[in-house]
Amino acid sequence: MSSLDALFSPRSVVILGASDDSAKWGHTMARGALDSPGGRTVLLVNRRAAQVLGQTAYPTAVAARTAHGADVDLAVICVPAASFLDAVQDSVDAGARVIVGITVGLSETGADGAALEKEALRIAREAGARLLGPNGLGVADTHTGLQLAHDVLLQGDVAVITQSGNLGLDLAALLADRGVGISRFVSLGNQSDLNVVDFLWASVKHEHTRAVAIYSEDVVDGRGFLAAAQALHEAGKPLVMLSPFRTAAAVRTAASHTGSLTTSSMVIDAACAATGAHRADHPTHQADLLVALRGPQRMSGRRTAVLTDGGGHGAVAADALAIVGLSTPMFTESTLTELTEAVWEHATVTNPVDLAGGGEKDTDSYARVVQTLLTSSQADGVLLTGYFGGYTARQSGLAVPELIAAQRIVDLVAAQSKPLVLHTIYPDSPTSRLLHDSGISVHRDVDRACAVLAGLVQGDNTGLGLPVPQPADPVVDVSYEASRALFAEAGVGFPMAIAVSDRAELEAAFDARGMTFPVVLKATGQLHKSDGGGVVLGLADREQARAAYDDIVARLAPPSVSVEAMADLDAGVELIIGSVHDPRFGAVVMVGLGGVFTEVLGDTACAVAPVTVDAARELLLSLRGAPLLEGARGRAPVDLDSLADLVVRVAHLGATHPEFSELELNPVLAGPDGVLALDARIVL
Amino acid sequence: MSSLDALFSPRSVVILGASDDSAKWGHTMARGALDSPGGRTVLLVNRRAAQVLGQTAYPTAVAARTAHGADVDLAVICVPAASFLDAVQDSVDAGARVIVGITVGLSETGADGAALEKEALRIAREAGARLLGPNGLGVADTHTGLQLAHDVLLQGDVAVITQSGNLGLDLAALLADRGVGISRFVSLGNQSDLNVVDFLWASVKHEHTRAVAIYSEDVVDGRGFLAAAQALHEAGKPLVMLSPFRTAAAVRTAASHTGSLTTSSMVIDAACAATGAHRADHPTHQADLLVALRGPQRMSGRRTAVLTDGGGHGAVAADALAIVGLSTPMFTESTLTELTEAVWEHATVTNPVDLAGGGEKDTDSYARVVQTLLTSSQADGVLLTGYFGGYTARQSGLAVPELIAAQRIVDLVAAQSKPLVLHTIYPDSPTSRLLHDSGISVHRDVDRACAVLAGLVQGDNTGLGLPVPQPADPVVDVSYEASRALFAEAGVGFPMAIAVSDRAELEAAFDARGMTFPVVLKATGQLHKSDGGGVVLGLADREQARAAYDDIVARLAPPSVSVEAMADLDAGVELIIGSVHDPRFGAVVMVGLGGVFTEVLGDTACAVAPVTVDAARELLLSLRGAPLLEGARGRAPVDLDSLADLVVRVAHLGATHPEFSELELNPVLAGPDGVLALDARIVL
Repeated sequence: MSSLDALFSPRSVVILGASDDSAKWGHTMARGALDSPGGRTVLLVNRRAAQVLGQTAYPTAVAARTAHGADVDLAVICVPAASFLDAVQDSVDAGARVIVGITVGLSETGADGAALEKEALRIAREAGARLLGPNGLGVADTHTGLQLAHDVLLQGDVAVITQSGNLGLDLAALLADRGVGISRFVSLGNQSDLNVVDFLWASVKHEHTRAVAIYSEDVVDGRGFLAAAQALHEAGKPLVMLSPFRTAAAVRTAASHTGSLTTSSMVIDAACAATGAHRADHPTHQADLLVALRGPQRMSGRRTAVLTDGGGHGAVAADALAIVGLSTPMFTESTLTELTEAVWEHATVTNPVDLAGGGEKDTDSYARVVQTLLTSSQADGVLLTGYFGGYTARQSGLAVPELIAAQRIVDLVAAQSKPLVLHTIYPDSPTSRLLHDSGISVHRDVDRACAVLAGLVQGDNTGLGLPVPQPADPVVDVSYEASRALFAEAGVGFPMAIAVSDRAELEAAFDARGMTFPVVLKATGQLHKSDGGGVVLGLADREQARAAYDDIVARLAPPSVSVEAMADLDAGVELIIGSVHDPRFGAVVMVGLGGVFTEVLGDTACAVAPVTVDAARELLLSLRGAPLLEGARGRAPVDLDSLADLVVRVAHLGATHPEFSELELNPVLAGPDGVLALDARIVL
Repeated sequence: MSSLDALFSPRSVVILGASDDSAKWGHTMARGALDSPGGRTVLLVNRRAAQVLGQTAYPTAVAARTAHGADVDLAVICVPAASFLDAVQDSVDAGARVIVGITVGLSETGADGAALEKEALRIAREAGARLLGPNGLGVADTHTGLQLAHDVLLQGDVAVITQSGNLGLDLAALLADRGVGISRFVSLGNQSDLNVVDFLWASVKHEHTRAVAIYSEDVVDGRGFLAAAQALHEAGKPLVMLSPFRTAAAVRTAASHTGSLTTSSMVIDAACAATGAHRADHPTHQADLLVALRGPQRMSGRRTAVLTDGGGHGAVAADALAIVGLSTPMFTESTLTELTEAVWEHATVTNPVDLAGGGEKDTDSYARVVQTLLTSSQADGVLLTGYFGGYTARQSGLAVPELIAAQRIVDLVAAQSKPLVLHTIYPDSPTSRLLHDSGISVHRDVDRACAVLAGLVQGDNTGLGLPVPQPADPVVDVSYEASRALFAEAGVGFPMAIAVSDRAELEAAFDARGMTFPVVLKATGQLHKSDGGGVVLGLADREQARAAYDDIVARLAPPSVSVEAMADLDAGVELIIGSVHDPRFGAVVMVGLGGVFTEVLGDTACAVAPVTVDAARELLLSLRGAPLLEGARGRAPVDLDSLADLVVRVAHLGATHPEFSELELNPVLAGPDGVLALDARIVL
């Protein structure tokens, strides 16, 4: 029996710290274990009481094991922190394959707790046992009947893996409200041993899991996460992640309550993008996405057809779709013709399609329009919004025609791959329930319906599949010259540059073939060049350049001075391209437009390195300022192929040099005919 | 009896087109009128039937009036479009003071319908009657018992004024879900006569109305809207507006279903900002805001304190607050000290405040923390998020302490002016209901809770109170020179400029005191200067300027050429400042940063003109690129006082010249020591 089998499907469970006091976790866990169906052995341990919950209580897990006559599979520890080590030792002595630590007051509280936790892990590992938690809220597997958590969970097909017990409860309740149950529930706690990645892999294989929800504040193993998330994606099991790292206040909380390291929110976004995982804004969004993604329908683009009966709802829906980044393009030719045939003369068919009272005249026109929209090449998905569902809600004479139209819509949707989502004033009407029960997302609120459609847009996943390259020989010299040479070796183009150490070399540099004025002088060495006055730009002729050289040498005495032809910044677009080392995910390539875009607007984008050239291109085009690259403001478009190629090279360099905390080309000048890096920097 | 009294509190109602057919509006209206309490006379008119709904039906309203023996106050017309005119004539002949037109197929369908509608309005006006609709879904006043609408509405204090009947139903249902009823319901239809502004004024005076909801696609009378909205604001009655003009698709729908003119969404935002009105994204948002704004508590800034028990919810809430533009600043000194005293040792108090399990040890700590946060000068409002409410939901041993803490929280909130909003997994628990019933916003979804807090942020309303100035004498000459002169007269500063007509005048201009090189030459006259090659920049000396002059004259033969000292664009920030004439709201002043901000990012802001200098300053600082004005990128901050003053002057010019469709200064150069307009343009 593997340790994960012992966790989810134990033959025997021992609860250390079992209690009669209903305010204690030792009570909740003991109660849960005793109430779980499946005929497994439940052993209760309490140092003082001989009976707990009407059962025999043993002073130790070892004593319980002896009474039981066989090793226990799973030990759940609910004792105070001061007794945690003893309980872990007792558990492994009783043969536990896996230990669930409910105990709080360990690494999340500081160094003393961390030391205790480390020692506990050592004890467990030495005995070949695995540890879940501590500081967790339990575990459940609704298909084996194990319910060791705060709530008894509805059986279903969503695995919930959470670093916050309360958020796990929140999500489970939201899913239950939507009629969707849980396959497995894992409260990760401090992830001392078993971490989120272990449970992603377990979900790939778990036959009863159809979709996976994570709440995670620390992706302990970023590269492991990427591999497991990719495997889930390939298994057709959607992964929806809630990860609260977007603001300083959120980071502050996370750091204090689990002591977690936090990865930049942008990197989490990049990891999701690379693996086809979805990122949710909050639990309700997460629940809505999980429900919808369990179905097979997907948007292959962002073009949404809106169908309503009464224009106001159509207009509000069009705005709500725009807020989530979906478009409502005007239909043309063939679709318009077909729609016109499907509706009465007062209807509008341009998109939104407004039956304009036609639903009352001819309820089947809803179904006919849906049919046209689902088969049209001009829409990737359909939002049905407003009154539909009202005829059954009000038991009007149109109730039966509405139900018939609804059944036709259900059949039409099921027969193809585009999603239809319903927003209705009447989500509890028989018509709405029919749609919901057939797997169609039904919403009372139009913004929720739109968010679900946006979540169903198929990602491109172009970042997938590039393995992390073997590390290159570590570099120690990150002087300007060495850095520039390293980049150049990796295929990055720079303007003509010659390092000089005296006036004679300076004159020779002026004469060198390819050197053109104006020139730039840069003091080399490890100093931060610009801040220290080590860079002088725009030296128009030899005279100016000589004066600047003398000045730099006098002020800074650098090992050498780099004489460089100065590129014409007006001839292209300035960018910043670099790579940073994330503590969890390794090298992450970042791109940004220079000037106000980066400095004032923070308009940067990143991807887990290495990247394919397609992913690099998409990354560049995801910038808000991307129109500049594509030729806004009357300029020619830049050479995007070369620019994307440069991003690939920088990403590869970052990925092969884990010893670099940061490498950066700033600025990079991208023009219509190519790309040049004008400065380079590497930080170890 | 005024026509609005006749509408909301008629002594007698006649329904033209009353019907036994439950699918017809003539049935719904007749049923509603007969079922409305209040003992008013209901007369039914049907051309063919002698009885409808068991009542006598008359062939005409006049016949009904005769039988009744007195003029009718209110006539509701449900007949087809072809009979609409006859029905209007019949209604006024029967003495109707006000007519509600349910009939569709009028101006919303095109020119023929519009002509019919115009004629109907003429008939009504001639008889001194007012018209609501046509193409409306009815009217209700729950306090007089009049229920002439699709639904019987819950009595309450929110007035719903809607241009889409279905959206009115949607909102009423959402409000009912939240335990809030309607005071009056008005479906505006085509606003042929009575429009949204009339009902805003009616709401100001209506004693049973505490808050007002609008769904409007066309604010027919923009300036009237501003005055009425301001009066509502002064009466302490919040106005929440849903107006779907944000995307082309939404505009398309609106245009087709009511034939409305659409005002730019930015102008609607400006109108809301100027009057303290709120703009909702969708009906659910509108309902949530209405419920919360009925209470007296407001955020005086954006600083939000978060309280939770279990860090995950705190982190998720901090992110959700950031999404709606609220901050979660770290607490300092006094607040930290007080909080530390209020909680147990494992809690985090920096903000979010995380009880970290302390709620289970000491449920009263919730109330103590709330007390500290409400009295702290470091928070403008409080979000309580996560588990609170769960102890009563689960009937745990802590249920009573939780209820006691909740009552303390209710009392604390009521005693002061900051809002507290609850997000809870358990919105239906006794604790949550206690808070809800005491006027605290309670939400199942954290994003909704955050959106409500954001809606409670007190606006500055600095745009309020400036009356539209008297129009100045209309201008007809909008040549470059005349435009520039008009701006200069209004107090706008320009660089030195001299118009010259020959080479001699050109030389004199070079010699003029204050003229410095480089200069710019601009061909004057009405041609669009830049596009026609009529502007030549950066002429370094007399020789270059002479050559450029000869070239312009040869190519364009302009009336004159303006010789202007060229400002150093690197010495400041470029902006665009202008005013456009909105068909509904009149002059609207627009500001934007030059370059990529306007051209690539569309980063502009607008306000209804005229504006105060404070409003102008806020407008400028609302730009995404505002950090550039405040001294980003190592520059000195620009002279914001002078810049705001310039905006005030441009706004005033726009407001006093309704004959201008557009006036623009582009670019305006703002530096640390002042502001210069470098070009001017006016379009009639």
